[in-house]
Amino acid sequence: VTNQMPTEWLKGLQDRICAGLVALDGSQFAEDLWEREGGGGGCTRILTGGDLFEKAGVNFAEVHGELPADFAAELPGVGRQFRATGVSLVLHPLSPMVPTVHANVRCIRKGDVMWFGGGMDLTPYYAYAEDAAHFHTHLKSVCDGFDASWYARFKPWCDNYFYLPHRDEARGIGGIFFDYVGVAKADLGESVQQRNPMALDTVVPVDRAEAFMKAVGDAFLGAYVPIAERRMNEPWTERERQFQLLRRGRYVEFNLLYDRGTQFGLRTGGRTESILMSLPALVRWEYAHTPEPGSREAELSDFLTARDWAEG
Amino acid sequence: VTNQMPTEWLKGLQDRICAGLVALDGSQFAEDLWEREGGGGGCTRILTGGDLFEKAGVNFAEVHGELPADFAAELPGVGRQFRATGVSLVLHPLSPMVPTVHANVRCIRKGDVMWFGGGMDLTPYYAYAEDAAHFHTHLKSVCDGFDASWYARFKPWCDNYFYLPHRDEARGIGGIFFDYVGVAKADLGESVQQRNPMALDTVVPVDRAEAFMKAVGDAFLGAYVPIAERRMNEPWTERERQFQLLRRGRYVEFNLLYDRGTQFGLRTGGRTESILMSLPALVRWEYAHTPEPGSREAELSDFLTARDWAEG
Repeated sequence: VTNQMPTEWLKGLQDRICAGLVALDGSQFAEDLWEREGGGGGCTRILTGGDLFEKAGVNFAEVHGELPADFAAELPGVGRQFRATGVSLVLHPLSPMVPTVHANVRCIRKGDVMWFGGGMDLTPYYAYAEDAAHFHTHLKSVCDGFDASWYARFKPWCDNYFYLPHRDEARGIGGIFFDYVGVAKADLGESVQQRNPMALDTVVPVDRAEAFMKAVGDAFLGAYVPIAERRMNEPWTERERQFQLLRRGRYVEFNLLYDRGTQFGLRTGGRTESILMSLPALVRWEYAHTPEPGSREAELSDFLTARDWAEG
Repeated sequence: VTNQMPTEWLKGLQDRICAGLVALDGSQFAEDLWEREGGGGGCTRILTGGDLFEKAGVNFAEVHGELPADFAAELPGVGRQFRATGVSLVLHPLSPMVPTVHANVRCIRKGDVMWFGGGMDLTPYYAYAEDAAHFHTHLKSVCDGFDASWYARFKPWCDNYFYLPHRDEARGIGGIFFDYVGVAKADLGESVQQRNPMALDTVVPVDRAEAFMKAVGDAFLGAYVPIAERRMNEPWTERERQFQLLRRGRYVEFNLLYDRGTQFGLRTGGRTESILMSLPALVRWEYAHTPEPGSREAELSDFLTARDWAEG
């Protein structure tokens, strides 16, 4: 059993993902290296104004230090010292036909306990069932390689997490989301258990948990790139662009109202620009917008209803 | 001493403010009447695509029912039954030379206790000291008509409230903000006291508290319209428009991350569209944007530093 954090591997993942996205878009990422006052730092890469991506952010961070007492009390492991490392990304394409995507993988150590989390979810603006099927089938095959029961846990966990109660709407067509892999659910604090009812009941050995996190990170390009390639040359109109800008408002609402990483990061002195790189370049809000019945825009709300997308 | 809520007066205020804004803009408001499941309802008025206002929302609501137990425990007055009525507005002009403005006045009754709150604050995109001076001088004169010490409390209360800690930035040049007028600070729960250190130490009689709320509501047009009139014909460029869209991002960040009314409303089944009418029509986020040194855009951050704006 190793207790080394997979920091170098995660840096390599950021490189590989960025290389894949550059190959797809043709534009380059700009890079910011930054340090965190409390300990550690990161590397934020942003591509803007590309042919495919209006704004794409891929962040690597390795931070450590002391957690606020109330937050530390909720997490497994003794004491308040923590170390966290991860890669997170949000890609906002220019074309409304290409879905927005979010992914992250992370490893956290506190005291003598280490656990892994992450996942990815897809937010389309127009309904393409074959894209949703590809995304979920790809993720299911990654999960199935580890445990035949995991996809059935991590898929609804994602649906539950990326949900906007004030709209009674899903953020997108989901994907997978997992956390605390490496810790048994019974060893999580009560409030963490309540917020994460799908957490694994058993302790997954560190090596296996780490291998799963790596497999999810490595699966990102295969899950997303074929969808982007399929949709990037579809024609789109100004009407469709305006609908995309409006739907991006829901993305902003989710990230600022509910996303735990965003809220925790901003409230505990994280690097604001690296946290808010997830926000789209251009967003529109319109009072009480309702798509025309029967239109492709109206089709979306039904499409976003959680369902079983994976094949096989 | 009356224990009637000033519901009809507030409806009239909404009418008078809307009439003033229509006279200024030339366009009309659309109106939505709505009912609240738990009790009460409201009237939301929205003007979009006007010559002056890209999006202007003026909301009246009169709601009642039972508060969630944890929230009720924090507030003065026995029991969980409450009744609240108020007018709130946010105006987003099209021109970056005309500031965004927010105002609200409200009356809340719980058990045998009734109190008043409200205020208004101005969010300019370009620095015009005379506008800030007019806005504050006008509000100070309203406060001074009641108590010579009130402006000195309600002005910093506003500065403290409309502040974005993750940016270390004020939302705008402030104004006044007050709450719990009619209740002594010592009678507020501990957490409410902590969040509202400027609350009045004394019980203001209901008639007087109500008169103050009405005076603030009546002061809105006089505080804002002269500024809008002065700036609405200033020329502006696409560069200035883009800067406005970027700064609007800060408005969205404040409302979704920190605004208590927004968070409470959305989490307790308020009418989403009436709550989020405060969001601008079009918003832009750019990673790590920094205005050119010496530019008018660079001037803004210094301009937004809290200072003594009122004259006389």
